[in-house]
Amino acid sequence: MRHALALARRGLGNVWPNPAVGCVMVREGVVVGRGWTQPGGRPHAEAMALAQAGRAAKGATAYVTLEPCAHHGKTPPCAEALVRAGVARVVTALTDPDPRVAGRGHAILRAAGITVSEGVWEAEAREVQRGFLTRLQHGRPMLTLKLASSFDGRIATASGESQWITDAQARRHVHALRLAHDAVMVGGKTARADRPALNVRGFGPLRQPVRIVVSSRPLPDLPAEGAEHGPLWQVSGAPEAFMAELGARGLTRVFCEGGGVLAASLLRAGLVDQLIGYSAGVVLGSDGRAGIGALGLEHLADAPRFRLAEMRRIGPDIMHCWLRD
Amino acid sequence: MRHALALARRGLGNVWPNPAVGCVMVREGVVVGRGWTQPGGRPHAEAMALAQAGRAAKGATAYVTLEPCAHHGKTPPCAEALVRAGVARVVTALTDPDPRVAGRGHAILRAAGITVSEGVWEAEAREVQRGFLTRLQHGRPMLTLKLASSFDGRIATASGESQWITDAQARRHVHALRLAHDAVMVGGKTARADRPALNVRGFGPLRQPVRIVVSSRPLPDLPAEGAEHGPLWQVSGAPEAFMAELGARGLTRVFCEGGGVLAASLLRAGLVDQLIGYSAGVVLGSDGRAGIGALGLEHLADAPRFRLAEMRRIGPDIMHCWLRD
Repeated sequence: MRHALALARRGLGNVWPNPAVGCVMVREGVVVGRGWTQPGGRPHAEAMALAQAGRAAKGATAYVTLEPCAHHGKTPPCAEALVRAGVARVVTALTDPDPRVAGRGHAILRAAGITVSEGVWEAEAREVQRGFLTRLQHGRPMLTLKLASSFDGRIATASGESQWITDAQARRHVHALRLAHDAVMVGGKTARADRPALNVRGFGPLRQPVRIVVSSRPLPDLPAEGAEHGPLWQVSGAPEAFMAELGARGLTRVFCEGGGVLAASLLRAGLVDQLIGYSAGVVLGSDGRAGIGALGLEHLADAPRFRLAEMRRIGPDIMHCWLRD
Repeated sequence: MRHALALARRGLGNVWPNPAVGCVMVREGVVVGRGWTQPGGRPHAEAMALAQAGRAAKGATAYVTLEPCAHHGKTPPCAEALVRAGVARVVTALTDPDPRVAGRGHAILRAAGITVSEGVWEAEAREVQRGFLTRLQHGRPMLTLKLASSFDGRIATASGESQWITDAQARRHVHALRLAHDAVMVGGKTARADRPALNVRGFGPLRQPVRIVVSSRPLPDLPAEGAEHGPLWQVSGAPEAFMAELGARGLTRVFCEGGGVLAASLLRAGLVDQLIGYSAGVVLGSDGRAGIGALGLEHLADAPRFRLAEMRRIGPDIMHCWLRD
């Protein structure tokens, strides 16, 4: 299952509105097939692994990070494909909460005499599927907020100089994170001031993330959609409303890179699921620019709290990732 | 030598104006004596280790983190004591830059026929001796600046609430750091607003650090010196001047805990040797209070830069330590 989860992660940012699933087929202790959800969401992981396994699928065990689908969509149901291939046992990490599946995948397998084990490595699978689950449960994409700042939390000098506070290695890590999200989002002020590319660079040809600018005013002249840049979407209004709109359009994972006003409004609305901080060993002082706008907090107890999920050194900087409690 | 360095660290904060030294005596592969500089700076590490080794010192190897002293101060020179005890070999990490020693300790040992190896684990020893070396070389104590803040670098809400941003475990770590410094320093505004205890709590009876308040105005009513509180010193004026004054009074390691104006003036003067950050998974926003005052930086290139020395999780928070480049 650990291997299947690693395969699942390959699809993150690349398969919306579908979940990023991984599948490993094992027969007599040998891996006979591996698959993960392909770009755009199809083929599914199970179909890839079954195709690779061929006849070796008969009598094999399939490890799948999410319950196999049971509904006829643009592809035939994976549960039926596993039955047809003669798989002996299926191990899954999560029951698919999608109402079109919701246990019916497992039921199809069991009805065909296949042994099914559920909930294996469930917590880890929940983390991988967080975007997909958030959209199903709350009707909006999961939201990651990034802040690259000085030791004292500043993103630029008083004069506005910000290139570069963190090192090239941390900036490359940001591109890898953009790659693992469906969309990259900034506020209108940032879009007008910085004309950011909001694309993934340095990772070869790939499906570029959607670019989202939150603004009610006309957008500046940004690059047209193409091989180097994803679709450009403009949204505005209350954070709850535009996040629901993004969920309705199929997004499961959104990466917000500021500015401070947008970040603060998302935090105030309780919409931030993950915080990623990059901290550099440089001090800019209180006259430097703040990375997150005013929250209007009276009491510390009202402040949004997150728990540490990961921290590590990236080049000369540190990266710390926090999840909503 | 690694063991000797660990012993040396026990003296940090406790032995000023003397260096914190560690000594391990080994004979035929067996540790026969261990010593470290005692509270107040005497007896020296070598004297402790020799006393413990007794007759076993004859023919032994002594690992010492600093060149043994050669001058008759309040104790007889350690170099001569090692000769008298019949030690066969002495391994040291650093030559003592104190002009009263400066190689003469090593010379006394060699003249007596003892084999001397110098510079073993020198970089690590330099870190342990950083306070002692800074005072000798720059006439001022080494300075550590602490900042315990939110994810976005804030130390209190707009209304001033700050208890607690970091967890009890991080606060205990701060007390351990106070313990390893000769003095704890705050600005006058912080002293008046918070009436901080500036002592070490929760570590049993010990030599409390000197309390330093940087202010030209009369001090508030702070606890009298005693078992629970170290001496109270008031300094004022330019940072370079009062740091030189503190060096002249014998301090080797000073721990500054703010406020923001004092922290900024020390950073601007280039007097901060070590930054210790504690970051919590809470966001306070740009209307929260800044931990470090204005630096008036025009260009990023002029900002004080530090390199990462250590980072780790402490309870729910992260601790990161940076050294001046």
